[in-house]
Amino acid sequence: MTSARPSAPVVRIAILGSGAVGAALISLLRSRSDDLTVQSGARLEIAGIAVADLSRARPDHVPGDLLTDDAASLVVDPSIDVVVELIGGMEPAGSLIRSALESGKPVVTANKALLASPEGIALRNLAHERGVDLLYEAAVAGAIPLVRVLRESLTGERIQRVMGIVNGTTNFILTKMTDNGTEYADVLAEAQDLGLAERDPTADVEGHDAAAKTAILTGVALGFDVVTADVSCEGITGIGSMDIEFADRFGYVVKLLAVVERIGEDEISARVHPAMVPKSHPLAGVRDAFNAVFIEGESAGELMLYGQGAGGLPTASAVVGDLIDATRNLLGKTTAPVPERQPGRLHPAAELRSAYYLTIDVEDRPGVLGIVSTVFGEHNVSIRSMEQEDLVDVARLIFLTHASREGDMNETIAALAAIDAVKRVGNAMRVFGERE
Amino acid sequence: MTSARPSAPVVRIAILGSGAVGAALISLLRSRSDDLTVQSGARLEIAGIAVADLSRARPDHVPGDLLTDDAASLVVDPSIDVVVELIGGMEPAGSLIRSALESGKPVVTANKALLASPEGIALRNLAHERGVDLLYEAAVAGAIPLVRVLRESLTGERIQRVMGIVNGTTNFILTKMTDNGTEYADVLAEAQDLGLAERDPTADVEGHDAAAKTAILTGVALGFDVVTADVSCEGITGIGSMDIEFADRFGYVVKLLAVVERIGEDEISARVHPAMVPKSHPLAGVRDAFNAVFIEGESAGELMLYGQGAGGLPTASAVVGDLIDATRNLLGKTTAPVPERQPGRLHPAAELRSAYYLTIDVEDRPGVLGIVSTVFGEHNVSIRSMEQEDLVDVARLIFLTHASREGDMNETIAALAAIDAVKRVGNAMRVFGERE
Repeated sequence: MTSARPSAPVVRIAILGSGAVGAALISLLRSRSDDLTVQSGARLEIAGIAVADLSRARPDHVPGDLLTDDAASLVVDPSIDVVVELIGGMEPAGSLIRSALESGKPVVTANKALLASPEGIALRNLAHERGVDLLYEAAVAGAIPLVRVLRESLTGERIQRVMGIVNGTTNFILTKMTDNGTEYADVLAEAQDLGLAERDPTADVEGHDAAAKTAILTGVALGFDVVTADVSCEGITGIGSMDIEFADRFGYVVKLLAVVERIGEDEISARVHPAMVPKSHPLAGVRDAFNAVFIEGESAGELMLYGQGAGGLPTASAVVGDLIDATRNLLGKTTAPVPERQPGRLHPAAELRSAYYLTIDVEDRPGVLGIVSTVFGEHNVSIRSMEQEDLVDVARLIFLTHASREGDMNETIAALAAIDAVKRVGNAMRVFGERE
Repeated sequence: MTSARPSAPVVRIAILGSGAVGAALISLLRSRSDDLTVQSGARLEIAGIAVADLSRARPDHVPGDLLTDDAASLVVDPSIDVVVELIGGMEPAGSLIRSALESGKPVVTANKALLASPEGIALRNLAHERGVDLLYEAAVAGAIPLVRVLRESLTGERIQRVMGIVNGTTNFILTKMTDNGTEYADVLAEAQDLGLAERDPTADVEGHDAAAKTAILTGVALGFDVVTADVSCEGITGIGSMDIEFADRFGYVVKLLAVVERIGEDEISARVHPAMVPKSHPLAGVRDAFNAVFIEGESAGELMLYGQGAGGLPTASAVVGDLIDATRNLLGKTTAPVPERQPGRLHPAAELRSAYYLTIDVEDRPGVLGIVSTVFGEHNVSIRSMEQEDLVDVARLIFLTHASREGDMNETIAALAAIDAVKRVGNAMRVFGERE
């Protein structure tokens, strides 16, 4: 019934950066031009593309006559209506977004590192004060419309917890380790060969990428602004095929979880860590490089959103969704809703309660189990189950605990490591779903 | 930073119907009043509640002084700003929504039967012509923000297929049959005792409820208006524990799927049927009464939304989301985007291609397998695998076919049933993911 009118106003877009996402965005804006006019109410015209190096070779569909290396002038050009920032990193991205917002231009960005920094919080505040959209669906979980669902569909909802798999590289590695029983280092090499992991994989495997997304989610879901450094963070490098095998035997799979939750009335926990997730939980079925986020709302109950967390085209599709929003809001002289800021404070990590899985290798002689068990008890960690496996020289003890304070568990681990009869203390891992 | 201003305008809401969803809605509007003012920009005031019978007992929090049995006057009352229709069924719901829209009032409804009828299409057209919102997130998949994601986040996206589990009752039944190896009739009785199935379960178990939701989804996802009767529909009553056991052995689980997809450039298939879904597919892990919808977009790739498909509070939470939207749009003098209508036609069911699972019981004597195999071949159905189990008097043959035309498969089944040596032809079931 609606149709693209030739009289539709033109909205001129500046694109900063022309990497994989930028090139895919240019391609989408051209191939779906008529549909986008119908949906946004305006003809979306690419008015300029800022790049760092004009001389670099680019795909044919990137129009050479629109390229410029003067991004700073482009974002304040009065003929530009909307700015899309796809450069990434802190600078010059931060200053360019600031200039654009100060000139009253809505900004769409996929820049998670920036958004999860103090400058990112300042930019969100600036956009709000100026009544200009700063939209960032593509910054968390790629094509998954997570920010919009939290911002709009669940707007009447008190969110208790958001928990998800937000890093595709680590999920790919854990999936392969689970399927094939292979070790972390071997799968990492495979992921690097496939282009799914960087040559320096630190940001992914140590959880830093997930922590930045977690910080952004905390703001969107709970209205509480934190930065990456506020998110307690543990990666997957310590996980062995043995841990995954035990998890399987007990009915779990190992996932790297990003968790944001309310603790009591006014505390918030934001963290990233591996966890043993029951096989029957929807997050357990999220395989390979897919992302998924599980949301627990007071009245909506449990929701999960699943999809591609990265890649040029999926990320560009999220940017297009934001661009349509920004354009509609521009024409309607309104802005996207911003979640109300809530008071609160970060819950100390040491006070978090969780059940744990822990393996230790001990001398295979009478009395050792008693010594070890005493250490758990002395630190208020209650043992739910213990299995013993006899290896060549040692006995391997596999413990599952009842819910315990993280601080108590850490002290238990330190005390165990100090015992002569304990030859090795393995990776402790949280077991999902056991609070008490 | 935003805060509820005492000066916020008042938006007066009429609620039609005061069943489980209505009561939950009243409760949410009261308990979350301040938050909703912040989010919607207006104070949401319940101005009237229309019920069929004033004398019936109601929960304490339903304010008696707002009750009326004159819904027709309420919806045209000039002091009412927004109408929420929760009566359900065709009439008087249809006429009331029509009056409200004609008076220029936005309407929020959860009425799937109406929306999936010719009158429902007419009402959507009327709303669009009048420039008034008709919002219905709660009509499909309860608390899952499916309509909004399709309407807004994926608006720049060409949707290829939407496929999901949209009926909680049948998914509960299939989950229990799978977990416990029990038969349909026994689990149905259990579901009825738990209040998860109606005393007359026809609408759920024959797929009619799912078909209505499929019709609505076809309009939202593909911009193509169909009614329930256009959706080819098969329920779960023919599925035995044997079928579920074989599915498990071959690596599948049985799910009742609602499918909407493009076939070629200008045809659309909309259907509901049981199917064998690979265990590794995200839909396979959707258990009990949960709903989930899998979306395949050209650039966003695969997305899935998962959550509670029914229940008073989850459904009311979806209504609240729509109410906030309607209010914001009312204040901003705009409306929610409506997907552009696309030309197209329904793909004939007989032409659909799918792999099939089929069991038949035959006389256990030489030559029978040859006769049976010939019948498949004569109807252009190619056998991928066959297993034989010897029962007391007969041999049971379990076939998986390559992708075949539905028409050819139906003729094969009819021809098999006409053979003397064939004692029983079981339920044929589509096998997901095999096209060619």
